[in-house]
Parts: sequence; C-alpha cells; structure tokens
Amino acid sequence: MSEYAAPLQDMRFALDLAGLAEVAALPGYEDASPDVIDAVLEEAARFTGEVLSPINRVGDRTGARLDEEGRVVMPEGFAAAYRAWADNGWNGMGCDPAHGGAGMPHLAVAQIQEMVMGANMAFSLCPLLTAGAIEALALCGSDEQKALYLERMVSGEWTGTMNLTEPQAGSDLAAVRTRAELQPDGSYRVFGQKIFITFGEHELASNIVHLVLARTPGAPEGVKGISLFIVPKFIPDADGNPGARNDLRCVSLEHKLGIHASPTCVMAFGDAGGATGWLCGEEHRGIEYMFIMMNAARYAVGLQGLAVAERAFQHARAYAHERRQGGEAGAKGGGSVPIVRHPDVRRMLMRMKSQVEAMRALAAVTAAARDRAARHPDEAERARAQAFVELMIPLVKGWSTETANEVASLGVQVHGGMGYVEETGAAQYLRDARITNIYEGTTGIQANDLVGRKIARDGGEAARAVLADMRQTVADLRAAGLEAIAVGLDDATQALERGIDFVLAHWRSDLRAVLAGAVPLLMLFGRAAGGWQLARGALLAQHRLAAGDGDTDFLRAKMVSARFYADHVLSECGGLAHMVCSGADAVLDEAAGL
Amino acid sequence: MSEYAAPLQDMRFALDLAGLAEVAALPGYEDASPDVIDAVLEEAARFTGEVLSPINRVGDRTGARLDEEGRVVMPEGFAAAYRAWADNGWNGMGCDPAHGGAGMPHLAVAQIQEMVMGANMAFSLCPLLTAGAIEALALCGSDEQKALYLERMVSGEWTGTMNLTEPQAGSDLAAVRTRAELQPDGSYRVFGQKIFITFGEHELASNIVHLVLARTPGAPEGVKGISLFIVPKFIPDADGNPGARNDLRCVSLEHKLGIHASPTCVMAFGDAGGATGWLCGEEHRGIEYMFIMMNAARYAVGLQGLAVAERAFQHARAYAHERRQGGEAGAKGGGSVPIVRHPDVRRMLMRMKSQVEAMRALAAVTAAARDRAARHPDEAERARAQAFVELMIPLVKGWSTETANEVASLGVQVHGGMGYVEETGAAQYLRDARITNIYEGTTGIQANDLVGRKIARDGGEAARAVLADMRQTVADLRAAGLEAIAVGLDDATQALERGIDFVLAHWRSDLRAVLAGAVPLLMLFGRAAGGWQLARGALLAQHRLAAGDGDTDFLRAKMVSARFYADHVLSECGGLAHMVCSGADAVLDEAAGL
Repeated sequence: MSEYAAPLQDMRFALDLAGLAEVAALPGYEDASPDVIDAVLEEAARFTGEVLSPINRVGDRTGARLDEEGRVVMPEGFAAAYRAWADNGWNGMGCDPAHGGAGMPHLAVAQIQEMVMGANMAFSLCPLLTAGAIEALALCGSDEQKALYLERMVSGEWTGTMNLTEPQAGSDLAAVRTRAELQPDGSYRVFGQKIFITFGEHELASNIVHLVLARTPGAPEGVKGISLFIVPKFIPDADGNPGARNDLRCVSLEHKLGIHASPTCVMAFGDAGGATGWLCGEEHRGIEYMFIMMNAARYAVGLQGLAVAERAFQHARAYAHERRQGGEAGAKGGGSVPIVRHPDVRRMLMRMKSQVEAMRALAAVTAAARDRAARHPDEAERARAQAFVELMIPLVKGWSTETANEVASLGVQVHGGMGYVEETGAAQYLRDARITNIYEGTTGIQANDLVGRKIARDGGEAARAVLADMRQTVADLRAAGLEAIAVGLDDATQALERGIDFVLAHWRSDLRAVLAGAVPLLMLFGRAAGGWQLARGALLAQHRLAAGDGDTDFLRAKMVSARFYADHVLSECGGLAHMVCSGADAVLDEAAGL
Repeated sequence: MSEYAAPLQDMRFALDLAGLAEVAALPGYEDASPDVIDAVLEEAARFTGEVLSPINRVGDRTGARLDEEGRVVMPEGFAAAYRAWADNGWNGMGCDPAHGGAGMPHLAVAQIQEMVMGANMAFSLCPLLTAGAIEALALCGSDEQKALYLERMVSGEWTGTMNLTEPQAGSDLAAVRTRAELQPDGSYRVFGQKIFITFGEHELASNIVHLVLARTPGAPEGVKGISLFIVPKFIPDADGNPGARNDLRCVSLEHKLGIHASPTCVMAFGDAGGATGWLCGEEHRGIEYMFIMMNAARYAVGLQGLAVAERAFQHARAYAHERRQGGEAGAKGGGSVPIVRHPDVRRMLMRMKSQVEAMRALAAVTAAARDRAARHPDEAERARAQAFVELMIPLVKGWSTETANEVASLGVQVHGGMGYVEETGAAQYLRDARITNIYEGTTGIQANDLVGRKIARDGGEAARAVLADMRQTVADLRAAGLEAIAVGLDDATQALERGIDFVLAHWRSDLRAVLAGAVPLLMLFGRAAGGWQLARGALLAQHRLAAGDGDTDFLRAKMVSARFYADHVLSECGGLAHMVCSGADAVLDEAAGL
C-alpha cells in the first residue's frame, strides 16, 4: 500500500493558474507571500504523508465504535494524529489571526485541505466541521461567546459540530422539530434528536461545541421559525474550562459504507431535563446563518471529491506500473508488460488524471475568487467575484463529487480482480467517495440551487459572464494553434449555452421541466467549466514551454491532459444538453409506471 | 427491507419480444411449451422471493468464513436454501434431460437465473459455477467421466468450480504455472496455487468437482500448452460415492467489497504429494474448451448485472414512494410529498428502470438466438444466430455490468443519507454489482473481444447485419409515428456506424488506436442495442394498446421507458463515437506523464 503523496507540482500550477500572486497582494494577506505559502504547502505535504496517510487504512478497517459507557473509541493512532494536528497549528490555517489563526488565503487553505482529505478523508471531517462551527460563531456569536469559544476552537483544543438533520428532516430543514425553551437566566433547555452528526462524540479534544438548529416556543412554521444554539458537551466554568457534563449524548453510531473512522452519531439532547444551550445570533435566523456558511461547507465537500479522486489515481497509477500482465498490443513476443502499456488502462488512467486536474483547477480558481470577494479593494470587483463564487459552488460540490465516484470506480477497475479485495485499498476510496455526493446537499439539491438561485435569479447574468470568458478561451486556443482543444471547448460552450437558455426560458413557465434536467445541466456546466480551466492550463503550459520556464515533462503532460479531456469528457456535453432541453417529457410523464 | 419480487410482467414481455413461441417450437423443446414455461417462472418467482431473498442480507452481514480446520462456514440459512434449491430441481433447469436436467430453452433459463441472482447474488454463484463445470464435462469429458459426474452435478448433489486464475495469471492465462504429472495409472498429480476460486470450498454439497487448468511436463509455452483436469475434493470410490479426501485445500478467503456470502478461495493443490486429477478432453486443449464455455459464463455475468440493477431499482422505487420530504415543486403549500414526486428523483428512477428494461430485452433476444443457434433446423439460420450471439455476448456482459454499477449507485442516491447506511440495504447492491464488470473478463477484455474477434474478424459482417436491423426499426418507428424514439435510435445507429467503420478501417493499420477506443465502442454498441430492443418493445406495446390486448398501464409505461431512454441514454452515443474515432491520440501520447 502506497502512502499519499501530495500532488505539489500540480497544486503549484493550479495556484499560478488561479493567480496566486494577485491573491497574495490583496489587503490582509501581507504575511502570506507566495514563498511563505509554498513553504507551508511543503510542510503540509510532509505532515499529511507521514502522519495522516499511515492511519487511513487502520481507520477504515477498525472504524470508530461506541463503547458501553457511550464513549466513542477512535481507531489506533487517531488521538496522537489529532494532537499533532492541533499542536502544529494546522487547525487555524484559514482562521482570523484575531482568534489565533494564521489568516491564510482561501486559495492556499484549499490546497492544504485537499492534502488532509486525500491522506485521510475520515480524519479530515473533524477539523472540517470545527471550521464550520468557527465560521458560524464568528459570524453570529456575541462578543462574549466569541471570547469563550473561538480561540479554543481555532487552536483545535475544542472541536465543533453542526446539528441540522433529524429523522424526518433530511434535505428539508423546514421539518426540524428539536425545541429550545428559554430559561430565566437567559439560557435555553434543548430537547430533541439529531442524526448524521459527524464527530458528534469523541475524546480527541477536551470539549465539543455543538451548534444545534431548534425551534423556540411559538416560532413560525417552516424555515423561518428555526434558531441556532450553542450546546457544549461540557458547560464552560467561570474560567472557561470544561465544567459540568451537559444533558446530551451519543445514542448510536451509523454503520456506513465508508469513512468508517468518522463517527456519524445519533445525538440525543435533553433526555434528562434539557440540554443547556445559548442562542447564537438572533432568534429565527438559524437557517439564514446556515446558508451563509453553506458555501464554505459545500466547497469543502467538493474538495473531498477531488482529494479522494487524486488518491485513487495515485494508487491505480502505481499499480499499473508495477503489475505485469499480457504482451504489448500489436507486438509479437516480447513477454509481459506493465499494464500501463495497455491502451484501455491508459484510457482509464487518463480519465482519472485529466478529471482530477480539471477539478483542482476549477476549485483553485473558485478559491481565488473567494479571496477577491472578501478582500478586493474595489467593490464592483468584490461583487463580480462573489457572483462567480456563488455560481461555481454547486459545480465544485456537485460535479466534483459525482466525478470522484467515477474516478474511484475506475481506480478499482485498473486493479482488476485485486481491486475487489479490500486489502488492496482501492475499494476504500470508492466507499469513501460515495458519501461526497450525498452530504452537505445531494447532487439533486446542488442542481436545484444552480438552476434556481444561481442561474435564473439574476436572469443568467453570472452564467453568461462565464460563457463569455469560455468563448475568449476558445479564441485564445485558436490563436495558439491548439485546435483540437478549441473544438472541444467550443462545442461544450455551445452545449452549455443551450442548456442555460432552456433554464432561463422555462424557469417561470415550466419549473418542473427545468428541475427534470437540473442534474444533467450541473454535470454539463461542471464538465465545461473544468475543461475551460484545463484549456487555460494548456495555454499557460504552452507559453512556459516556449519560454523554457519550468519542468518540460510536466508542462507537456498538462497539454496532453487538456487534449484528452476535450476528446473524452467535453464530448459528453452535447448529450447532456439534449437531456436538459428535450429530456423532461419522459421524466414527468405520469404514465411512466414508477 | 423489502424482499425481492421477480419482475414477471416485464420478463413475459421480454419473452414475447424475443419470440418465445418460435423458440418453444424448436426441435427438442417440445416439452417446454409457453404455458409450462410460464408456470415454471411463477414457481421460480415464489422460490426466489421466499427462500433466497430473505437470506441475502444475513449473507452480506455475516459472510462466509474459514474455520481453523480449513472448512468454509456459510452464513445462516444457506445450507437449508441450497438443499431446497437442489431438492426442487432448480439446479438442472437448463441441463440435458439425458443427465437428469429439465432441458429448458436458454430463453426461459435466463429468466430463472435473473431471479436467482436478483434475490441473492452471492448464492447464485454456486449453481452458476456448477453449470459451467457441467458444460465443460458434457463438452469434453469421456463417457466414463460423464457417467461418474454429470448426473450428480445436474441434481446439485455435487457442485463444481473453475480453477483458472493464479497470482501471476489474471486476465493472461498464458502465464498459468500449475503443473500436472502423468501417473502410471493414467491419473495425474496436480501441483499449484489458484486464486479467486468461487465456492472453491464449502459443505453445501457432499463433493466439489474442481476443473483445473494446468500444464503437463514439456507442454508448449503460452496458451497452447494448457490442459484441463478434473480434480474432485473427495475421490469417488468404486460406487461413485465420495471417497478419500484429495490433496487440495482452501488456504484462505478473500475479504471482498461485496458478495460476502460467496467464498472466494485461494486453493492449494498438491501440498502433500500431489492432488489426484484426470485429464478432461485432449491434452493442450484446455484454453480452447474454456473459450467455448466462456460465452455462457459471460452471458450469465451480464445477467447478474441486470439482476442486481433490477433489485436496486425495486428498493429505490419503494423508498421513493414511502419517504416524504419537501413540497411539490412549483406548488404553494400542500405539505410534504413522497420523493417520487420530485423531478430529479423521477429522473434517477427512470434512468434505472429504462436501462434495466433495455438490459433485460437485449439479454432475452440474445438467449433466443442461443436457442436458435443450437436447435434451428436450418443450418444457415443456426450460423446467423450464432454470429449474432457471439457479437452480443461482450455487450450483454460488458455493457450490462457497467450499467449495473450506474444503476446501483443511483439506487443509493435516491435514498440520500440513508443510502450510505448499510442497514438500508441499498449499499449492498452497489458493493455486489462492483464485481460484475471485473470477473469473467473485465470490461476492457470484453471490449477487446468485441473489436477483434466479433467485429474485425468477419470484416464487420455481423455488426453490419445488426446495423441494418436497427435501421429497419427506425423506419418502423417512423411509420408508427414514434418520432422522438426514432430520432434517438437513428442518431445512435449513425454514431455506432461511425465507431464500427473506425474499427474496420484501423484494425490492421493502427491496432492501438482501435484498442484505445474499444470500451467506449462497447458502451456505445450496448446503449444502441439496448435502445433498439426498447424501441421494438415500444412498437409491440403500441400494437397491443391499439388491439386492446394486455395491461394498459404496463404497456403505456413501456412506451415511456423507450422515450426516456432515447432522450437520456441514446443521446450519449454521439459523445462515445467521438471518443472512439478521435480519442486515441491523447490516450497513446507518451508525453501524458502517466
């Protein structure tokens, strides 16, 4: 079993493609020079390869388990790894220096996150959920709450969770029933059951800060009656140290297909009189706060897709070089060759590699836009960047995670029969990847967000801006003589335009027809946007090759990736556009016999 | 958890589409009238639903395990189910009445097999491997060997295995090293290790007849030096009863992603002086015999893909009716609705349903051709049917199993977060399905077979005959006013023709370019062939509706399936043709950096 090796060379390329120099020059990132960032990435590569990757398999094999006292027992090595994680300051890389964070740009943090997720996806979920809780507290907590919680969570001394889902309320948070009753001292008593709570219980940290969606008495029905509460596992004492055990507990862990080392908890609040909680932000605005955080969370899950796909690719490529089987096609004699010589194995590996690189490039460009949206001195530029981010988030989440499943399955296939044997390790990536297109909103939810909030709501303005940029890239490719890639991207852009036009034309008149094609449109948009970034990468690589600037082999390989992607992935866009524009009748036909 | 319910109505429709009446009228099938077959299918539906389906989950959860004495312990209920299976005569349904079989046509047996596989894929592998061994013995065994083994194997009293793979010889059987040394009494001593031996050890039956590929001393290198041997677990005594324990044993079981109740054995032959075996057929012809049997085995694995996809669909459809979440899109108020009302859930279910029906129809048409190839009185018709079967086998195997993975993954997706929890059951189908596109030859191996032996070797004659039939169906659709389906099938047929032309034009001049696109061509051909059969089904349904003959709801649903498939699946054919015809450059580019 090979350990994870962070793809530093392609990450650096993605950083350049996304404009690292401009991002690092934004106000507030003065300390994050490209040199500093590069050193941090080198160190992150070492940490993830040496500390997190080696416990990935044991985590899968052993899994987290609940003991008879209701404690979650983590697999061997996880406690030590978490200590090293917190002690080395990784937890606060992207956090505000005011709370002890390193204040790194999103663009750099995304690369670190990818490494952590690629090395050990189950482990990565604990800091990921903590980061979400930090963001929520920073957004809507009182000064007192921030003082009490933020520094400890940024350092990793305490972790955080998000308690949204209930058995009857999965994607539909309007159905939340957990209730919170105001007490005379201003605190609340919280009662209810939450499911699918990631790292809802563990002993890696000395406290767990649960953020819980609940209803106050008399609150309006639906999403407008839900508030956000802070419900810590141990109630902080006067010095801010963990004090009395709160009335909440982990009732059971889910037995899942993958991410076995991530405890997915059923949490019971208030079985013994009520869990003590405090309102976070204003009453009835809980869903609104969640939506603000959701972009970051969805982006991060998209990175998980990228990360697990990268690891599946590394594993499969190594096997394809090592395994000898059959002779070279078309050659007489000569004995067996490594299977990487076989055309179909190459095809599979190139499907994996080119899509991984496309996902990484699109994620990086989106991260850079997040930095511009937050920090750019020009308001119009901030707004433009924010609109781009909003449009890209459902793609980074939905397309990357669907693609991750394809890539991880190809990784199994490259291994042949050995891929089906768990000890090989390839199957774990497939099992782990399978959650990424479900949690933080299924692909269907992402697609509804894309067609509704992101395309229809602004009358297609943000989407058309991207189409115009894509067409500019097509023109640049033609000018540079990269005709095959230009043809692929041109066709994909035209297909995407047909899909977007259909959404805009029918959003008000035939909503159900638009929704019937929403996922195909998301996959079309994701493929096209990924191809656009690979094409920009091919132009950059060609430019550097001509200038004699950089690793020739790597740069030539980038051009091959873009070419492969154009012929094998962008060629799927026409069919997807047909599903969007002509596919609704049969989907909605009541005679279908479903 | 719902039990498996055999899809009898669609099976009957597929039987009619494939021409059951003509098949039943073939010489030798006099006892298999459509009425008899229908009664057998009803009974098979009952048996599989009541006996095999209920032990599917426990089989997955417990799995087969190897005890300290080297015995395979099967999950609870499997021994009783196997006894019922054998006692009720299911094992010999397709076997020659001369050996105690029921002599049912392939077309009927395929439906029974689908039921068994859908109810319990892991269980189904034991009879499946036995059927392969029966076929081999019937094909090349001596009269004495047939008398000794066949009746007991047809009844299910003994089971059989195929011992092909070795650690260094996966897809490449030329690398087989197991050796067999002739003894003075005419028997052989067999020495070697085999891996991935399905049901290589168990105690469901009183003996296991291993068929083993091995080399005799001085045999030629490569595939032409391999012979086939019969190596029983217990050496039959003078009365033909199981006698002395042979020198062979199960060393370990693989820990697999799925089909946990199917013991996948590492088998050691000859650790204590040599396992006793007997040559089956002529020396050095082992691979040739295997290839003759391979069509049946590959066809059967294609049915597994269909079967597990059907079960995943049943499970997902039931959940989509039961689970309420969110309101009807576009409606104000009205409360939560079953998720089957949501357009994207419908789209997923229709992708599952229409592809399952396409796979079933293509498998049935292929089975009917197998019957004609074996039994038709006219030699030219037998040859035509055999050519069609040979062409379809890699599609039934490769396309159906790849599609099964997509369908099973959609089944998980329909369940949302619950799909990721093992207790729900949806994840098992995904894990089980994942082996079907690997064993009995990966999709890459099927695709090489398709482009080489099945398309290029006869200069495209068989493939062009299918294209002509497809075009006839397009004309029939137009004449019947089914324009949308006609457009989809017409485009797919044209795309397929481009792909076939590319193969024929480049097979000799640029073999590696053809192989680089072989899997996309297989998927293109499979999609198109499945769509062709669904289109024929739509014509049949339309005809019956007009005649007032049959279940109106069912027949209208068949027409919707064909329409959906045309818009959502056949629309993918153009992109696949592009990969075949233009995709090789980047696959084979040595600068790709793989």
